[in-house]
Amino acid sequence: MNRRFVILTEGQTNPIQAKTASCVIRYCPEEVVALFDGEHAGKTSRELLGVGDVPIIGRLADAPEARTLLIGIANPGGLIPDSWRAIIIEAIERGLDVVSGMHVFLAEDPDLAALARKHQVRLIDVRNNRLQRIARGEGLRDECLRIHTVGHDCSVGKMVASVELTNALKARGYDAKFAATGQTGIVVEGDGYPIDCMVADFISGATEQLVLDHQHHEILVVEGQGSLFHPSYSGVTLGLLHGCQPHGMILCYEVGRSSPLGLEHITLPPLSTVRRMYEIAAAIRGPCPVIGIAMNSRMLTDQEAERERKEMSRLFGLPVCDVFRHGAEPLVQAVLALKAARDAKRNSS
Amino acid sequence: MNRRFVILTEGQTNPIQAKTASCVIRYCPEEVVALFDGEHAGKTSRELLGVGDVPIIGRLADAPEARTLLIGIANPGGLIPDSWRAIIIEAIERGLDVVSGMHVFLAEDPDLAALARKHQVRLIDVRNNRLQRIARGEGLRDECLRIHTVGHDCSVGKMVASVELTNALKARGYDAKFAATGQTGIVVEGDGYPIDCMVADFISGATEQLVLDHQHHEILVVEGQGSLFHPSYSGVTLGLLHGCQPHGMILCYEVGRSSPLGLEHITLPPLSTVRRMYEIAAAIRGPCPVIGIAMNSRMLTDQEAERERKEMSRLFGLPVCDVFRHGAEPLVQAVLALKAARDAKRNSS
Repeated sequence: MNRRFVILTEGQTNPIQAKTASCVIRYCPEEVVALFDGEHAGKTSRELLGVGDVPIIGRLADAPEARTLLIGIANPGGLIPDSWRAIIIEAIERGLDVVSGMHVFLAEDPDLAALARKHQVRLIDVRNNRLQRIARGEGLRDECLRIHTVGHDCSVGKMVASVELTNALKARGYDAKFAATGQTGIVVEGDGYPIDCMVADFISGATEQLVLDHQHHEILVVEGQGSLFHPSYSGVTLGLLHGCQPHGMILCYEVGRSSPLGLEHITLPPLSTVRRMYEIAAAIRGPCPVIGIAMNSRMLTDQEAERERKEMSRLFGLPVCDVFRHGAEPLVQAVLALKAARDAKRNSS
Repeated sequence: MNRRFVILTEGQTNPIQAKTASCVIRYCPEEVVALFDGEHAGKTSRELLGVGDVPIIGRLADAPEARTLLIGIANPGGLIPDSWRAIIIEAIERGLDVVSGMHVFLAEDPDLAALARKHQVRLIDVRNNRLQRIARGEGLRDECLRIHTVGHDCSVGKMVASVELTNALKARGYDAKFAATGQTGIVVEGDGYPIDCMVADFISGATEQLVLDHQHHEILVVEGQGSLFHPSYSGVTLGLLHGCQPHGMILCYEVGRSSPLGLEHITLPPLSTVRRMYEIAAAIRGPCPVIGIAMNSRMLTDQEAERERKEMSRLFGLPVCDVFRHGAEPLVQAVLALKAARDAKRNSS
């Protein structure tokens, strides 16, 4: 199924705010028809987001082949800008489905819901999944290797590292699966649970269900959310970590990020502290080391990035890479080493 | 306002399952008319729950002065037993409001909602508070001392320690407030936020709002939830800890508890590890020591409890007490010492 997306990023077509747009263009390029941002009509996604060759349009009429309007931003509060309402209404009237990952649900807006019924289109709220399930810590398949991406902050590239690692494992012939836990990942992968919008008591239970759903695969790469060091979202992070019971973690960080996103009065601790905290927190379910580091070096030159990579690798004694610059191969090697060790242990016991 | 509760605990009138009932009998005795449990009609709450002299009835007709039916249990999944439905329906037909702290909301049941409208009674779902607010970490009043109760597990007495500490501080003339974060605490206190049923992204934000609402008091005692060591609920615990930004913590534990509630295959770490983990986790918002220990010694004799208390106090170098056996005075002293130190520092700067 090709969803033929027009991705709405009106007034916010930049790499930080239009994270959903960037990722869908990167990982589902064949499904993207256009970006919608009136101010930049005529340009391409590469000029504004650094990815893909998607045309930017300012009128829905310019993308007659579109089937779906995708809300292309991921803002903290999860609210859709008021000014976008007219565009959403026009999309519905043109017979487009609308996909949104916001906390406020389109389908719960009586006017939009009535209009959608009239035009027989679907309002798909990716985050509207209120699975009410307590984690039981049972039934997890030991043969399925669970890898979890964690970060020193939000928006440092955990999703991208997860997808790139999964794709690289697949390319090597392994039966790997990207287990999506956020709205963008769910749009990219086509399934998953929006862990950050579960009712708090069910964060771990929903994550556990995600693992149970997909543990017939050889390797599950469970996308992390937030950070133990971001005080606005740390609960999501810890519930997710305990719910998926990983065997190994990939630590993701952005070079130069010194404060949690949006909280400049707080200083992030050194990465060695971050690593230790995740390992202590994970250990209540069993030993779970950080096995590799995914660095986001978008602010660096190639030369600076290479220096950072070598320095971090020396400091931590772990494989380090920027999945965009270097590919995910160092992380693949770390995962396969952990898998071989676990397989050997299981076969000998 | 006297809510004149009949508390429904049918078939579950024991101290573990009927936690809500026990606490409301303990802290709002003048508002409780009767307990409802057909099997034990004629007995009293003291015989089954060890608290109060509330008669147990098996028919609503036996409590004609009642105004409110309170669901008196706090089970993990938050589901109301099917067999209770007939009792709830009869209560509505008799003109009683119904108060519930379950995750499944009475008011969202179309039949109950219609019946309630017909009989002009209210269905009050204490947990139905979906405040959508991101924590900002701003605006917290330095003069308001924030104390937070944390535990090595769920259901070890965090709420009770919080209420007893608050009441003891009030008795000494301090302007203290119990900041309720769970359904039972909210029924007892009459306000608060049900943190464990917030949408995950808003756990810390709702907690911060709770502090902002009440920080005109001198001392806020913020009720803890769950445990960093209970993998089903740890996300709630961490989000709450980071949201309320405490100045000091009271560590609550039950003597003899060796596994997280309902997860017998997991072993809880030693209390020294628990203390360290909470202090590390809290530290991302600033220094926050454990200043006292509230032990739940319900399984011990007086002599055993005294031995435990002395041993723990020696090991940790902290005041230790069981608030029921010894009163909360040792915790009061710890809080006042922290307050004096902070006040002195603020006045000298």
